[in-house]
Amino acid sequence: MLNYVAFGARQATPCTGFSAVSQRLMDPDNRGFTLWFTGLPCAGKSTLARMVAEELGRRGIRCEILDGDEVRQHLSRGLGYSKEDRDENIRRIGFVCGLLSRHGVAAIVAAISPYRAARDQVRSAVGTFVEVQVQTPVEICAQRDPRGLYKKAFRGQLKNFTGVNDPYEPPLNPELVVDAGHESAKVCTGQVIACLERLGLVRR
Amino acid sequence: MLNYVAFGARQATPCTGFSAVSQRLMDPDNRGFTLWFTGLPCAGKSTLARMVAEELGRRGIRCEILDGDEVRQHLSRGLGYSKEDRDENIRRIGFVCGLLSRHGVAAIVAAISPYRAARDQVRSAVGTFVEVQVQTPVEICAQRDPRGLYKKAFRGQLKNFTGVNDPYEPPLNPELVVDAGHESAKVCTGQVIACLERLGLVRR
Repeated sequence: MLNYVAFGARQATPCTGFSAVSQRLMDPDNRGFTLWFTGLPCAGKSTLARMVAEELGRRGIRCEILDGDEVRQHLSRGLGYSKEDRDENIRRIGFVCGLLSRHGVAAIVAAISPYRAARDQVRSAVGTFVEVQVQTPVEICAQRDPRGLYKKAFRGQLKNFTGVNDPYEPPLNPELVVDAGHESAKVCTGQVIACLERLGLVRR
Repeated sequence: MLNYVAFGARQATPCTGFSAVSQRLMDPDNRGFTLWFTGLPCAGKSTLARMVAEELGRRGIRCEILDGDEVRQHLSRGLGYSKEDRDENIRRIGFVCGLLSRHGVAAIVAAISPYRAARDQVRSAVGTFVEVQVQTPVEICAQRDPRGLYKKAFRGQLKNFTGVNDPYEPPLNPELVVDAGHESAKVCTGQVIACLERLGLVRR
């Protein structure tokens, strides 16, 4: 009866499925990580996430883009834009990043994620965390804004708009800062890939 | 300038990272799927999820258990046990299953998931969905209940308790029904594995 396990012996349920066997099968070229783009609205996070994902895909690396706006619909319906709600949204994205990355996927996040502590919480919760600050001056973000949200926020018609009437806390020690206000998306993409190479997460 | 992409040309952000290249690299033995255990509280879902995950792990298949109670803490803080909130919780679990399974992971869910329509919605949203009804008579569930929740519910001290004072809608066409009230966990686990083999998701 050695292999007999009775029902009802309730235990904590660790995610044991990803066993030593699976770990041995892991391709060292396919180590999972979380690549996190943070920055003001319209700073260029989603564009960069897409272009980096395309380049990683060309190199045979599985990746998944978690775009802030999209993820909100799937995981955070009902949450608003208070500090608490924003932080809860970020924690949820971080939870999903942890799941994906421990199975060898590059989880690429494009989310304003304005609060430093929430990002640092994700950093300490997931395995490998690469934080990229997409630094674009607010005036350039506003020029690029296709939905005219900055205009509304400047006029006071929109509350809790990051960078205008809601705080943005830049990272203190990001793995990379890209100057997406003055450099092209292609140049910034190259910088991100170079950073991943330098960190040993992507083969040169 | 063919490769130049300007910032600000906001587009829908499909998850393009998982490219054709990655798909070609996919091990046919490592096709992702969602294995969904549904049933009354204390029916044996978590035990089965764990035992199946262990067996799949031994076979070198990546898997991840998403346990209803655990996932609630990470993805659904603030949601309660109304039909709407339960359905929203299931949709979120389904979203994560979709992400994991398209990267070759076996996403194993143990969640009461009492409403048929919500489960069917997940079925149509994720790639490959295997629904296992863990059919355990309510009296046996109540006997096994380590936290005494059934007792409280029978006494009317607990509201919205599935199987006592909240509905449970069994699947109409599940891939498998296991009689976890009368068969051992080991036997049921074998039936689940056999089902996955029959469906071509796991090598015999």
